[in-house]
Amino acid sequence: MHSLDASFSALADPTRRAILARLALGEATVMELAKPFDMTQPAVSRHLRVLEDAGLIVRRAEGTKRPCRLAADGLDGIDDWLALLRRALEPNYARLDDVLANMEPKPRTRTRKEKP
Amino acid sequence: MHSLDASFSALADPTRRAILARLALGEATVMELAKPFDMTQPAVSRHLRVLEDAGLIVRRAEGTKRPCRLAADGLDGIDDWLALLRRALEPNYARLDDVLANMEPKPRTRTRKEKP
Repeated sequence: MHSLDASFSALADPTRRAILARLALGEATVMELAKPFDMTQPAVSRHLRVLEDAGLIVRRAEGTKRPCRLAADGLDGIDDWLALLRRALEPNYARLDDVLANMEPKPRTRTRKEKP
Repeated sequence: MHSLDASFSALADPTRRAILARLALGEATVMELAKPFDMTQPAVSRHLRVLEDAGLIVRRAEGTKRPCRLAADGLDGIDDWLALLRRALEPNYARLDDVLANMEPKPRTRTRKEKP
């Protein structure tokens, strides 16, 4: 599992998100990615390295090319973590939280017998 | 809608993720957050400002306190964006992509009549 720091940090850049969106359509080489993004190949390669280190893409060797694709398990760590927040944001849970937040603290009822 | 750059960037820090995980259990004040994290209140406040600017938390005034809670729509932008990648990573889609990647380019069949 790659670090969540690396995954979220990799996703915080708009060019890297655009590269991932392109790879969602299928595998692509650095050259194929550089053209529509109007970037140099070294610039694309730097972004790809960040995405690879974050476990979001994988690359394979094909002669001198190294086509990239989305990593099948690239979002697993992120999904697991976000699920925690999503559960807390579900309408029922949020309503319960509101109720609890607005409850007046009541004086505790004594359960101890008055006459021991 | 807050920017995806800000949202993902805010999530890239482990302390901020821990603060969100705590808020998933319910509202908390800066003081309540500072204690378990063994951080000063100004340090917590700085993280809260980043989370607020990213639209991940909201704060309300309650006397001199400003309790924080998760923003109900804080993950909407992130979810929409990640859904794009998740669809591409679904098993059926990935298999189709494999099939297409491994297909040999076939010579095109001529449909034009030989004798016009």
